[in-house]
Formats: sequence, C-alpha cells, structure tokens
Amino acid sequence: MSATSHEAPDSHTGRLEEPVLRPFPGSRKIYAEGSRQDLRVPMREVTLADTPSTSGAERNRPFYLYDTSGPYTDPEHHVDLRRGLPAVRAPWIEERDDCERLEGPSSGYGRERQSDPTAAALRFAHIRPPRRARVGSCVTQMHYARRGVITPEMEYVALRESQLQEREAGGFGRQHPGRSFGARIPERITPELVRSEVARGRAIIPANINHPESEPMIIGRNFLVKINANMGNSALTSSIEEEVEKMVWATRWGADTIMDLSTGRHIHETREWVIRNSPVPVGTVPIYQALEKVDGKAEELTWEIFRDTLIEQAEQGVDYFTIHAGVRLAFVPLTATRVTGIVSRGGSIMAKWCLAHHRESFLYERFEEICEIMAAYDVAFSLGDGLRPGSIADANDEAQMAELATLGELTQVAWEHDCQVMIEGPGHVPMQLIHENMTEQLRLCHEAPFYTLGPLTTDIAPGYDHITSAIGAAMIGWYGTAMLCYVTPKEHLGLPDKHDVREGIIAYKIAAHAADLAKGHPAAQLRDNALSKARFEFRWRDQFNLGLDPDRAQAYHDETLPKEAHKLAHFCSMCGPRFCSMKISQEVSEYARQNKISDPQSALEQGLRDKAREFQQSEAEIYQRR
Amino acid sequence: MSATSHEAPDSHTGRLEEPVLRPFPGSRKIYAEGSRQDLRVPMREVTLADTPSTSGAERNRPFYLYDTSGPYTDPEHHVDLRRGLPAVRAPWIEERDDCERLEGPSSGYGRERQSDPTAAALRFAHIRPPRRARVGSCVTQMHYARRGVITPEMEYVALRESQLQEREAGGFGRQHPGRSFGARIPERITPELVRSEVARGRAIIPANINHPESEPMIIGRNFLVKINANMGNSALTSSIEEEVEKMVWATRWGADTIMDLSTGRHIHETREWVIRNSPVPVGTVPIYQALEKVDGKAEELTWEIFRDTLIEQAEQGVDYFTIHAGVRLAFVPLTATRVTGIVSRGGSIMAKWCLAHHRESFLYERFEEICEIMAAYDVAFSLGDGLRPGSIADANDEAQMAELATLGELTQVAWEHDCQVMIEGPGHVPMQLIHENMTEQLRLCHEAPFYTLGPLTTDIAPGYDHITSAIGAAMIGWYGTAMLCYVTPKEHLGLPDKHDVREGIIAYKIAAHAADLAKGHPAAQLRDNALSKARFEFRWRDQFNLGLDPDRAQAYHDETLPKEAHKLAHFCSMCGPRFCSMKISQEVSEYARQNKISDPQSALEQGLRDKAREFQQSEAEIYQRR
Repeated sequence: MSATSHEAPDSHTGRLEEPVLRPFPGSRKIYAEGSRQDLRVPMREVTLADTPSTSGAERNRPFYLYDTSGPYTDPEHHVDLRRGLPAVRAPWIEERDDCERLEGPSSGYGRERQSDPTAAALRFAHIRPPRRARVGSCVTQMHYARRGVITPEMEYVALRESQLQEREAGGFGRQHPGRSFGARIPERITPELVRSEVARGRAIIPANINHPESEPMIIGRNFLVKINANMGNSALTSSIEEEVEKMVWATRWGADTIMDLSTGRHIHETREWVIRNSPVPVGTVPIYQALEKVDGKAEELTWEIFRDTLIEQAEQGVDYFTIHAGVRLAFVPLTATRVTGIVSRGGSIMAKWCLAHHRESFLYERFEEICEIMAAYDVAFSLGDGLRPGSIADANDEAQMAELATLGELTQVAWEHDCQVMIEGPGHVPMQLIHENMTEQLRLCHEAPFYTLGPLTTDIAPGYDHITSAIGAAMIGWYGTAMLCYVTPKEHLGLPDKHDVREGIIAYKIAAHAADLAKGHPAAQLRDNALSKARFEFRWRDQFNLGLDPDRAQAYHDETLPKEAHKLAHFCSMCGPRFCSMKISQEVSEYARQNKISDPQSALEQGLRDKAREFQQSEAEIYQRR
Repeated sequence: MSATSHEAPDSHTGRLEEPVLRPFPGSRKIYAEGSRQDLRVPMREVTLADTPSTSGAERNRPFYLYDTSGPYTDPEHHVDLRRGLPAVRAPWIEERDDCERLEGPSSGYGRERQSDPTAAALRFAHIRPPRRARVGSCVTQMHYARRGVITPEMEYVALRESQLQEREAGGFGRQHPGRSFGARIPERITPELVRSEVARGRAIIPANINHPESEPMIIGRNFLVKINANMGNSALTSSIEEEVEKMVWATRWGADTIMDLSTGRHIHETREWVIRNSPVPVGTVPIYQALEKVDGKAEELTWEIFRDTLIEQAEQGVDYFTIHAGVRLAFVPLTATRVTGIVSRGGSIMAKWCLAHHRESFLYERFEEICEIMAAYDVAFSLGDGLRPGSIADANDEAQMAELATLGELTQVAWEHDCQVMIEGPGHVPMQLIHENMTEQLRLCHEAPFYTLGPLTTDIAPGYDHITSAIGAAMIGWYGTAMLCYVTPKEHLGLPDKHDVREGIIAYKIAAHAADLAKGHPAAQLRDNALSKARFEFRWRDQFNLGLDPDRAQAYHDETLPKEAHKLAHFCSMCGPRFCSMKISQEVSEYARQNKISDPQSALEQGLRDKAREFQQSEAEIYQRR
C-alpha cells in the first residue's frame, strides 16, 4: 500500500485486512429486535467465565456492550467494500413518503465528477440516485419529533442507549450517585424521551436520507457521551483505500461518528467510498472542498460554489456539516492580539474571505438558504467554532465568546427550519476555565448539544495531546458536552495513521465513559463493576475482554506471563506468586460470606477470633516461594 | 541484558546506554547559584530561534526549565555508577553538627548483608558508614524549620521553585487567574516561605542524612505539583542493572521522586545501587522487605523484624517510607463486602497479620517508636492508604475514610516528633467523588501534603491506565494534591519496562502541569505561551524542545515531513502547503501590529478596508499548489 497512491480500496477483492475485521475475543455479535423485524440493534455480547468458589462455581451472566462496529464484526456479513453496507434505514425512509428520487446528482460538481473519465478507476461502482425532500415536505428527524412522531430511528436509538439497563438483572450491582450539572439523566431511555429531546433541540440524530447504511445514534446531554474520530487525506498523504480502512478501524474501537476532513485530490470519490461503507454518521467541513475548487484562494470563494458543494455532499449522504457561519467580519480583528490567532482551518478561510472583500461572511448572510438545503436531506448543522482558542493563552477570550453568541443566534434560525443543530467548542482551555465554556454554551445556545475538540488542558506536550485533551474532554463531558471530538498523539505534528487513530479513540472512550460515570448515567458503572469483579477473581480473560482494548490488555499481560496457565493464575507479575494482596482479600470476603457478615462492624464480635485461629493453624501456605 | 540475571550494573564500565544520557536537543545544563558556592541549582536552558518578521528578526530569550535529571545530563559530569553521584548535601549535613558517623550498619540485617560472601559480586563498592542523629539531637528539616532556621536545603528548594518567575522578564506574557481551592499560591517563593510551610507541616523536603546525593525538592500544596515514579523488581523479573537504568531514565523524563518497590531477591543490594546513583529522593515500602525476611508469611512478621528493616533502609538513605499504620484491626471487616477488597499490598499484609493474630496492628501500636527511628535519619513518613479503593465501586467507602481519619491522628503524633509527613491517597475514584477525597484529606490530616495514586477515573481500560488515571491526577492535583504517583500502561497487567516508565511519566507531567496552570501557580503558563508562540511562528524545533518529550515530537513530525527544510516550513502535513490557517492568521496579526490596533473593535473603522484592498491586489499567492 503506497502512501501517495490514489487507488480505490482493494480493487481486486473489496476486502479488508484481517486485524481490522477480527472478531473481539470472547464476544459475539447479537441484535436486539424492536417493534418491527427490520429494526435490529447490534450489541456485543461478552461471555464471562464462572466465579470459582468453595461452594461450587457461580455463574456470571454475559455482558452486553454498545457496539459501533457495524456489520464488519458480524461473521454472517460478507464484507465487500465495492458494494457498500446494507441500507438498513432504506425502508423507514421510503415509508415516510416525504422525499423523491432524483435522476442523478443535482449539483454541478456532482454531475461533473460523474462524467469525468479520469475518475473512472476510482469511482464507487454502485452509486444510487440521490433522495431529496419533496417540495413542501420536511424530512428531518426534528420535524417528525416536533409533530409527535416517533420514527424507527428514534426507537432504534432508545433501544441502543438503554441496553445497558437491561443488565442490572445481571447482578453487577451498585452505582454511585452522579453529579449531572443540570442534565436530566433519565432512569429509563424510552422512544418518547428520545423524541422529546430531539423536538426540544437538546439532542440530534444525524441521519441524512442519503446515508441509509448508517445505524442510528443520538447526540445529546441526557444520553451517553459520544466520540468522533477525524480522518481524511491531505495534499501530502493517504489513499482512498487507507481512508476507508481507517474508518472501519475507527468504528471497531468505538467511534460513534467519523469526520472526513480530506483536503487532497479525489475528495469527492474518497467520500463516496467512505459513506457507502460507514455504519456510523459521517461529518464533513464543506468549505474545505469548496476551497479546493478555487485552487486554495480563499478570496475567490463564492456563495454559488459553496452552495453547490453543500448539495453535492448532501446528496452523497453526509450526515452533518461543519459550517463556520459564526466567523463574522467584525470578530476577525479580535484575534489580532492572540498568541495563536485563528487556528481553525475553516475559520481562517472565512476570515481571509471577509478581510479580502471587507464584507460580512456569506455563510452568515446566506444562513437561511443553507438551512433550506440542510432540511431537504436532513443534514445536521455542526456550527463551527472558527475562532476557537489554539493555545491556553487564548482560552475564553472575547473572539471565542463573540462567536459562541452568534452560534446561539443561528441555532434559533436553524430550528425555525426544523434543522438539527450541534455547536462546536474548543480547543485549548486550562482546567479552571472549562466549566465556563459549558455554562456559556448552554446559556447562549439554548441547550443545543455541545461538541468539543478536547479541550487540551496544556500546550506543552506535543506528541501526547490525546492525553492533554482527554483530561479536558472527560471534564467537559461531565459538565455536559454531548460529543467529544478525539485528538490523536499526532495532533500539531502530522496526520494520524491507524495506530494513532486507535490511541486517540481509546483515550476518548475513556474520557466519555468517565463522564458517563460522573454524570450518573444509569448503569454506566456496571461495566466497571463487572471488570473489577473479574479482576478480583483472577478471571484474566474476562478482565481483558470487558476492557476497551482486549488485544492490548492481553498483549501486555503476555509480555511477562505468556503461558495459557497464567490466564488462570492467582497472581500477576507485579507481586509475583509469593504474596498477592487480592488473594488475602478474597479470604477476608469469603470468611464474611460464610459467616453472613452483612454489618461489617459486628464482625469483630461475631468472631474474627475464629478466623485468627484458622489462620494460625493452617499449615499450608499456598503462596510459598517456589 | 537478561531479564532474570541479577548482575550489578555494567560491572565493566559503570556506564549507561546512550539514549538514557543523550543531552536534550537545543538545551544545556546550567546552575543557578545561591548564597553559597556549594549551593547550585540545576536547570535546563532551552535556546530559542529568532522570530522572523518583516521588520527584522526578533530575538527570543532562552527558556529555563525545572530539571530533575541530575548530573547525568551534565556533559561535565563523568558517569560512573560504581562510584555513585557526588554528595552535594554532605557539607550542609556536616555543618549542622547534629549527627554522628556510625562504624557500620546498626541493623542486624544490614550487617548480615555486608558480610554475606554470596552478595559480594552484587554489592555496591563504595558504601559509606551511615550517619545517625546524635542522642538528644533532631536532624529533620521540620525540626530546623520550627526553630526558625533556613537550611541550605530550604534555600535550594526556593531557588528551584522560583526559577520560573525569573522568566517573566522574558516576555512570555499573560496568565489566566487560577482557582486554587484554598491553596495559598505565593507570588514569590522565598526561603522563608519554604521554611514556614515545612514548619507548619504543609510541605516536606524528603532528605535523609544518608542520601547526600539527592538534590533537594519540596512536596506541598503551595508549590509546584510533583510526580513520583515507581520501579522495582519482583520475584519474576528485572535485574539490578535494569532498575538503576530505569531510575536514571525516570529522572530524565521528569520524575521528582522514585519509589523502589522491589520484592524479589537482592533488594538490599539493589536499593544501595539505586540510592547511591539517584539525584532525587527515594521512597520504599519497608513492609515488603520485612515480608521477604519471613518467607512471605505475613502472620510471622514481628515488630522486631520490621524495626530492623526500618533501620537497615534508613541507614542506606531512603528518603521516605510508606507505613501502613492506618490499617487497624477493626477496619478489616469493613472491606468484606467490597467488590475488590484490599488491593494495597502493604494493606493486605497488615490485614492478614491482624486477622491471624486477632490483634491491633503493630505499626499502629508502635507508632511512636517508628517516629523515633524516622527522626534519627530524617526519613519522611508517607502514611500508606492500605485500604484505598481498588475499583470505582469501592471509592470513598467507610473503610477508606476510617483509615484516612486514623492517618490524620498519626500525623499529629509524628509532628510531635518533628517528623515530616505526607498522606497517601487513592486509587480508583469516579470524577464526581474526587473532590471529596481532597477536602476530607485536608480536614482530617491537618493539611499534611496529599500524595495520590492517580486516581483512576474508570476501571474499563486495562492497558491504558496511565490515561484513566492522568484524568483523575490532573483534577486532584488542581484540588490540592501535592504529589502524584504515576500509573503506567502496564498497571494491573505487568511490571513496567523503560517504555512504560516514559509513557507513565509524561502522562503525569501533563497532569501535574495542568494542575499548576489551573491553580494559578505563578508563571506556570509561561511555558505554554512560549511553546504556542513557537508553534504559531513555525519554529518547529523550538516547539519540540519546549515540550515534555522533544524526541517523540520530532519523530512524529519526521514521519511525514522528514527533511531538514521542513523544520522551517510554514505548513505541516495536516493541511499541506496550500492553505494554512496559522499563516493567514499571522497576516491578520501582522496587520494589526503595523497599524497599532490595540483596541480590536476600532480596527474596522481604522481601515481594514486597506487590508482588503491589499489582499485583492496581491498577485502572489504564496501557498499555491506545487
């Protein structure tokens, strides 16, 4: 695989490499069925070993995990990237009878690409004609939600989010009360709750009618915190093949959405391949491609070129667009005295355009027209933070806050068109200023979901910004951010490869889950409990398999204790076989159970003396030196 | 190098491998001199390139970094592990004239090891006879502080901590106000401030009179947040050579102290090599070695064996001891219903002893005698959290809080003996419960410094616990923890190797610095500002060199843009050469500077129209496709 080739994905086989598809150990794909046969929500079932006990083995029920990996981890599914994924949402979209099938792309550029013979070798073969709302109809999930209709997408999402609670029967026990900072975390996630949150604008279901392959998911403060993984080639690196593989790889590790930020050649063709094969919603920044169309000269951008790009991408099936409509002419000078000026690429493009023409941004002026296009395909807005701080020094400054207020104003305009909206956030913010970001966003943007990049809590660790930002991401997720955009170790230094994508995603799954725990999301703690119980009982494989990265956990364990028998050993390489803290601790617990000590304080009176005697008499010391 | 050999460090040369010693790029070791010639505080000076500008280059002053790496990064120093480091503190200790030189070790075990012929090949050759307080004298830093004496150690620490502020003259600019949660962050760090904080018990300077090689440092809530790196062999892995190399490696990346947690063979000899070569304070958990002496049978531990171990280690120069004196008999049953029982190794050893004898812990009962030993060598207490939670489920429970209250009680006893004390903390804690840990510790332990392991904010990521815990560490550091004990990616899975040590340390340097920023430590933000300024000005090498890991940053950049010219390029592989957000942003800033726009709002009236015209007229587009 060459880093600079632009070949279509494995044109011979349409297959992916084995590590990208390998089933998770000890796991199988299952589907929970909803109110109709074609509503099947994927989950990963992890089989757990029995708990050994003196009174006979105790069975541990299987554990169910939220599963973003799509059909790729289903052995029943035959992967053929050339055909794309099954269109699971197609019947639901058809039934609503609110859209029409066009004969072909209605954008000028879409038609041009379709007939360009030089792109023939790269082109995805099975392009469907696009769908568009019929004149007078609105196809957005928000539109239906506001009319009181629960769509199959909403039911799907409710089932997907609430699978966790079903497990409570599994006996994984207690959970600490959360602190939710005003979020109203529901006890049960019902389809009606999903509908009402979407209607209120507090949650979105990114679901372009031209991306029927996507498995519905929800982004909102009262649901599980989600993560996004960015990918995309640049003028310097990456082939289409690599981008598709990265997308599959990202969903395997838990990306809830992906953004294709390609800026190099063949971005139209790359995007088609990515969307047709993506089980998760796909976001883009249309201004990037528009800029390519004017050869990188921001000042030559026009509303017409941008509009055509929106339609081109909407008809391919992009689920959400980053639109930097809050970068207004008057705000640009506010960045002049910053340490790092404007670091958002979209923001700087628009700043340059505004300065060059000394005119208000066409994104701002044409915002209602943009809404009409978004509504016709149900593309959600991700209102871009073009003036986000690029350094600790610039955090929470006037430029950032002026833009945020504008995004709030635009949110209300979008909602008038029944468009779904989320708001992008920073960036680089020291810990003591993170909370202000969240509270200002909620206040200014009327509780539209917040979608933040990190934030990075310090600037001093290039090469480790997945960590500097996972700290900020966990905190802002706790405070109320609905989706966290990952940062990889390559941030500021280069484009992420597959290794970096995995590192970034796991760091962000950690941040998102830590936030769910802290908010008190129902049953979030059950996975921690199940894994810790496995750890305490020396069920090593269960510990690995319940973790975010079973392969990594096992590989690390294998480095010192590679043998199969070590996966059952009642010790580890940290303390060695001679004295294990968990072993003695198990003895204490076992003693308590046998003597039915429910009130621990009474244990002393009840006769820990017996235990003392037992220990003293015991001749056998299991953990002797060998 | 074999993983199971127990050879002395490179017995042929006494040298270390090149990567462990390589000078940091663009940096040199300098020393700031105090009030006396032999008081020289090491710092790393980073040379910065000029800022290119249309009006001629602008000089950037060198930047000074806190330096824990000891003489190893000083090219003037000839490394010979067989001789150990220079005894920089020896004259100060001698001058105080409060201790005597013993003829040899006064512990039974120390004498035994000294005369054991089988250990001859492993033994450090240049063992000095130990020092001990003269009868009637007290040698602790706290003792001097309370008498109003500023020791050279205190002056050293003040200079070391305040070097940061000197840089303000360097023009790295503004800093956000911090939020300090009751910490009193000083404007200037003076020797008198150091003295008063040590006297009050709010900070400690771990400085055993038998470890004169150590460079003084301070642990306290009103100073920079510190980090500790654990190392040590177990029964299963590691040689002495590896342990010494890991220690040097750890201080290179920024470990402020290290703990030698060896549990395998030859721990006496390993410790001697480590201490003699360590420029940072060394901590241990003496109960680990005591347990080895009774062949791993906790119930056979006695006060006499433990006491002898304390003296043995104190005379080698250990700077702080973890003592699990808070694990009282009555608390053990409180752990019976936990998900993960007792996970502290020291805690479980003492729990087993208490149960086996059905007696109160000898550590608790003999605490005053322990204080007398600690005071005779100035070994600081690190009161262990033997009942810390090992899972999210067990966080902040009755067992943990009961022990914490006991540690507070013991703190006051230790202070009566002029012993320095810090308190160990958890463990596994979800974000919403972290703050309670800190406030309870401050309240119950009278503001003695808190020293926490993480805490891990979720249990579900084995293989990535440096990240799950860096999140908690940053937060609890912000709330007031004085030192953070690192967690490596191998936590729960195996013993860390050199790679893991580096990953763990960088994650914790990030957490500590993020905490310093958030608390508002004076000048903490200057490094962020300097690095971000370098980033914005495309001074790539300066960006790398100011970061926590210059080698990693450069390696990542080299992956896509390896050429020397790319280190000056005004673009990166993320956006490629066609359109760089920072470039346009620089143009905006440059324009503002030239037009002296200090009030950005007035910029519009002042004539951004000129700028617009200029952009339109410009024929040259620098960032064309090549």
